[in-house]
Amino acid sequence: MTHHLSHFVRRLKIGEMSLLSTSPYKGTRDFFPSDKRLHNWMFDQIRSVVQGFGYLEYDGPMLEPFDVYAAKTGEEIVNQQLYWLMDKGDRKLAVRPEMTPTLARMVASKVNEEPKPIRWFSVPNLWRYERPQRGRLREHWQLNVDVLGGETRLADAELIQLAVEIFRKFGGEEHLQIRVNSRRLVNHVFSKVMGLSDDVAYKLSKLVDAKEKMPAEQFSAQVHELGVAGEALKSLDAFFGLKIENLLETFAGEASQELVDLMQTLKNLGVGEQVRFDPTIMRGMDYYTGVVFEAFDISPDNNRALFGGGRYDNLVSLFSKTELSGAGFGLGDVTLQNFLETHKLMPEFPSFYDVYCACADEKSWQAVQNEVKAWREAGLKVLVPLQMGALKAQFKEANRFAVPYVVVVGEQELESGQWSLKNMAKGTQEAVEPKKILEILKSS
Amino acid sequence: MTHHLSHFVRRLKIGEMSLLSTSPYKGTRDFFPSDKRLHNWMFDQIRSVVQGFGYLEYDGPMLEPFDVYAAKTGEEIVNQQLYWLMDKGDRKLAVRPEMTPTLARMVASKVNEEPKPIRWFSVPNLWRYERPQRGRLREHWQLNVDVLGGETRLADAELIQLAVEIFRKFGGEEHLQIRVNSRRLVNHVFSKVMGLSDDVAYKLSKLVDAKEKMPAEQFSAQVHELGVAGEALKSLDAFFGLKIENLLETFAGEASQELVDLMQTLKNLGVGEQVRFDPTIMRGMDYYTGVVFEAFDISPDNNRALFGGGRYDNLVSLFSKTELSGAGFGLGDVTLQNFLETHKLMPEFPSFYDVYCACADEKSWQAVQNEVKAWREAGLKVLVPLQMGALKAQFKEANRFAVPYVVVVGEQELESGQWSLKNMAKGTQEAVEPKKILEILKSS
Repeated sequence: MTHHLSHFVRRLKIGEMSLLSTSPYKGTRDFFPSDKRLHNWMFDQIRSVVQGFGYLEYDGPMLEPFDVYAAKTGEEIVNQQLYWLMDKGDRKLAVRPEMTPTLARMVASKVNEEPKPIRWFSVPNLWRYERPQRGRLREHWQLNVDVLGGETRLADAELIQLAVEIFRKFGGEEHLQIRVNSRRLVNHVFSKVMGLSDDVAYKLSKLVDAKEKMPAEQFSAQVHELGVAGEALKSLDAFFGLKIENLLETFAGEASQELVDLMQTLKNLGVGEQVRFDPTIMRGMDYYTGVVFEAFDISPDNNRALFGGGRYDNLVSLFSKTELSGAGFGLGDVTLQNFLETHKLMPEFPSFYDVYCACADEKSWQAVQNEVKAWREAGLKVLVPLQMGALKAQFKEANRFAVPYVVVVGEQELESGQWSLKNMAKGTQEAVEPKKILEILKSS
Repeated sequence: MTHHLSHFVRRLKIGEMSLLSTSPYKGTRDFFPSDKRLHNWMFDQIRSVVQGFGYLEYDGPMLEPFDVYAAKTGEEIVNQQLYWLMDKGDRKLAVRPEMTPTLARMVASKVNEEPKPIRWFSVPNLWRYERPQRGRLREHWQLNVDVLGGETRLADAELIQLAVEIFRKFGGEEHLQIRVNSRRLVNHVFSKVMGLSDDVAYKLSKLVDAKEKMPAEQFSAQVHELGVAGEALKSLDAFFGLKIENLLETFAGEASQELVDLMQTLKNLGVGEQVRFDPTIMRGMDYYTGVVFEAFDISPDNNRALFGGGRYDNLVSLFSKTELSGAGFGLGDVTLQNFLETHKLMPEFPSFYDVYCACADEKSWQAVQNEVKAWREAGLKVLVPLQMGALKAQFKEANRFAVPYVVVVGEQELESGQWSLKNMAKGTQEAVEPKKILEILKSS
């Protein structure tokens, strides 16, 4: 008491007596129990699909050495969006903005021991310093699914198939469109066909990545600024207007063949409806080397990207001399939740609780403990009062918590050996032997 | 390719060509799939117990405003152990070292709406800059269970009962000892009985908190340095030697009565075996105001604290004018895992996978997809090959992943409509109609 007072006085003295804000840090969320229940439900659904494909869950530390991202994550994220700090040993650490480098680091550390193909997933929380807006927060949770090893076409196809299955699980696959492209094809067109230098090709890819966010004239002007004109510009326009049917005849070569084969395999897998070739899909990360894809909700109300990913053949080699090709995608909780809300695919949850055990006095409270324990062991969620007030107050409490059943125990019930069981929705009440209550509750 | 090469060349030029380390940041862990499976298992067991008591899961952001901890978390943590950073808007943020301030902030924001008592839990990862050692890492996951509102004695008792139930769930309750004290009692003894000033009382409590970590002579010397001598020292020694039976007669008053009543209630709840009064238990946090407790493994091999907590009557009032009494405890994953390993209470997991569907060629691979989909929807974990090599290689792969069943499909099986199902442990093989495979696998 006194000790606490002394602290209180100390705070008063240095003028800190104003209340602290109850808001979470800007761009982050508090998950109150109803939010957390929904969040858990979403990722439980996802887990069941991903595990059905035999993917194993992994996790890594929230802070990673800064260098893990500096190498390949992309300039915008590293320079403008990373949360970083120096630890007391002068090590530069970053709060993870994405999971793929952690995955590559972990895989590299066991690259020779782990059986291939490696199919792993994770649900990390990730941080980026951004202006918070619909679908984009500073902290979000993201499903990461990756496969390393295997034939690239079949692995890429499995990932896209799996992503569609996740949306089918939620009942929303009809709204899904996955736009597929190939970095290898882009590099072929930009370098070999258009004859751009590495530097201009890189800048053009970043510009195309941002194309949707600017007016058409602005895009054209910036393409012009890069010195892309004449025949090169014609090739670029031809590329952007391409349909998959004409890809091979327009740009013959391995990169085109790969993409055509993948699209055929996806058709064979029954997800042809959900995919289409889109030569403007680039993805922000610098590490992609093959197929890239980005999924959108085709309904106009919710036009943000839902998930995206691609193939990164050289990422593990940042950490290991053994090369191992990989591909993966990330699916964020915020955009998914917006999607599910837009299409009314969120569930209505029943009451979280099963039964409230009202006790007339502390003797009864003590007497019910063994039964309550048995109910809990059987998987029921049981509330007992923490205040020995009137039974009326306990019923009020049970109501506020929306508990469907209330057991009432007092002197009379203890004597008769028949406890009172009330169905709160129906308002009915019956006298029951304590041993039979569990059975009734389990079957209700 | 070329674009990637340009990056490669850039890195080469600035001399960064050495491989990055595959180790996680010191004091943190990578959770490979077998680690993550164990971790999930531990917390699933815990969740089932905590939810049985009607506690609801919540979560908050990984970064919080620094001030949230500066007020009450305790000097050692804030000054020496906090990971903190400035964001690009010059806000000082801390990586959360504990969950209770986040809880208090969240509860304060809805203190009038939420029905009481509030029973919440969370499983956050927490960060402290410490020298890594057995049972103590820089990042760990911690169950946090809290109750706000209700009669303090019954709420404190429920928390301790719940903690014992967690250890009973793991089969380890016999090794558990929970040492219980009261900050209110300590303040009474230090201030009223011993007549210490607030400042000396505070320093003495910190010293007692560290008592176990130093030789007896060092402790005595430091007590002496604080000016505690004569009658005061005698009272301190008397206090440290007290048994619960003699508490009321030695230090009469409300604080003693509360503690005696709590111990009696715990006996009535059937956890008397696991608890004992220990006047040296202080707990590090500055915010505790009532009962405090710390649990130990009584086996000598594993003598670190397993969990600890207490009552913090004034924490919500940092954020809100409404006062609400609360109590809670934290149970860390590292010490729990050490405990379970010490007492051989860890499970042996069966294979993660249910079946591997070997395909002789891509035509078969495509033909099995519908059945595979049905198996996955029924909850089975099904691997398909990502490389259309020889069946022998696929069997080898199924073996490396320890898959218990392999279905084999090739031209012959597609023609006959009878697929081959192999039990890998027994080495037996049978020809089965595809539709019947699910049934066999589900019942195996």
